[in-house]
Amino acid sequence: MQVIDIADKLRTFHEHWSPKVIAELNGQHLKVVKLLGEFDWHFHEHEDELFWVIQGTLVIHFRDSSIQLESGQMCVIPKGVEHKPVAEEECEVVLFEPVGTLNTGNLENNRTVSKPEVI
Amino acid sequence: MQVIDIADKLRTFHEHWSPKVIAELNGQHLKVVKLLGEFDWHFHEHEDELFWVIQGTLVIHFRDSSIQLESGQMCVIPKGVEHKPVAEEECEVVLFEPVGTLNTGNLENNRTVSKPEVI
Repeated sequence: MQVIDIADKLRTFHEHWSPKVIAELNGQHLKVVKLLGEFDWHFHEHEDELFWVIQGTLVIHFRDSSIQLESGQMCVIPKGVEHKPVAEEECEVVLFEPVGTLNTGNLENNRTVSKPEVI
Repeated sequence: MQVIDIADKLRTFHEHWSPKVIAELNGQHLKVVKLLGEFDWHFHEHEDELFWVIQGTLVIHFRDSSIQLESGQMCVIPKGVEHKPVAEEECEVVLFEPVGTLNTGNLENNRTVSKPEVI
């Protein structure tokens, strides 16, 4: 049985906004991603999405509010809810979401990762 | 939108082998649990199960091998695979698994938690 070490996985890549798959179970993907700067407003039509900050600070804006997540904190964003992640400094995040969830949700642009790498 | 703080959640209870639900998304539960001692051999007929060690050391025995997980390490146990978690000292673990997954899998005994508390 394979041991998955989060820190080891995070050391294997440097690019931002490009989620990598580290585990698959029950039709869900566990991903790691490094974030820096502002992402695009988007929503996921069919998928709830969990953001879990491993290191750093992540602000997630909603149309009517925002939250700040520090290391060890997480948030579930229900499907359909527009959100915009912003990281003033690089932060490391775990995502838990259904297989096939697009990072840009309802948008397709140059940041869309349609087939995230498995690491 | 609710911020979920893992350390805060873990401070709210002390019993062992009794998973608590901290989030629900896409038909899955995110749970926290404190483990100490030996659990029972069991398997989950329909559910893959992720163990993610937050603090401490967890050994998971399989019929033909075993693994040791330290803080920041995780493992996916596929459905049908017999396993027996053992923690020589208290450890804190996050579980990802489908809603309704029983902690004792195919067994029912005095450790079975059929309706885990939401905290």
